[in-house]
Amino acid sequence: MDEKNNKNCVFCKIVRNELPSAKLFETEKVLAFLDIAPINKGHALVIPKRHFVDIHDLPEEEFKEIATVIKRIASAVKKATNAEGINVLQANGKAAGQEVFHFHVHIIPRFNDDNSGFKWLKKAYSEGEMQEFQKKIKKFL
Amino acid sequence: MDEKNNKNCVFCKIVRNELPSAKLFETEKVLAFLDIAPINKGHALVIPKRHFVDIHDLPEEEFKEIATVIKRIASAVKKATNAEGINVLQANGKAAGQEVFHFHVHIIPRFNDDNSGFKWLKKAYSEGEMQEFQKKIKKFL
Repeated sequence: MDEKNNKNCVFCKIVRNELPSAKLFETEKVLAFLDIAPINKGHALVIPKRHFVDIHDLPEEEFKEIATVIKRIASAVKKATNAEGINVLQANGKAAGQEVFHFHVHIIPRFNDDNSGFKWLKKAYSEGEMQEFQKKIKKFL
Repeated sequence: MDEKNNKNCVFCKIVRNELPSAKLFETEKVLAFLDIAPINKGHALVIPKRHFVDIHDLPEEEFKEIATVIKRIASAVKKATNAEGINVLQANGKAAGQEVFHFHVHIIPRFNDDNSGFKWLKKAYSEGEMQEFQKKIKKFL
């Protein structure tokens, strides 16, 4: 089995047309199609055609091509759905809400009254703690 | 006032060092720094140095450079915080949760027990409706 074309992955199956999908757009390396369980109707996904698990696994070249497709799809979804906003969301790991382990970016049309959103509780750094995190992260850059 | 260097924008002020910030990394066009009100500690932001309101306003070249920085920061944040997952999130418009109107991408370390996440209620398309949305969106591509 080619590591970058996963036999059992649902998104790889969509790429290979073994599963039906509402495709929107594709480039050499990237495919955009509609999420079958949308947060709001018109919710699209952008994926690399090759199988990469997450952002850490995804090559830079693929990500750059994905970025241009995200921008294009975001504008088209906004116009087509008359959305009041657009969320671009991407999850890596089960702890982050990832369900399909083939890198994908959600493009979600949003409306003022859609009752969706985030359960984000903002935290506060104690004195000097932000600088500690800054140092720790910079070590890995 | 230069349209792409907004006098009153807090992120433009960070770029110009008129406001303090915990900077992580920068390239010619892109800056990464810590969010002062983190969802989890180590939560970073990636922005273009020039002032663009949202993804629709952001030029493709800036977005490509941002993509490479996102990937780099996501890996460093994961390692530095021992995160179990990473969310990459970007909001366009108040309806999508945008608070600062200078394009920015959140890179959020996630943990299984962090009690954060999404309030996403998945919807269902009726018979043929997905194809209608597909057609509508493709018109704008």
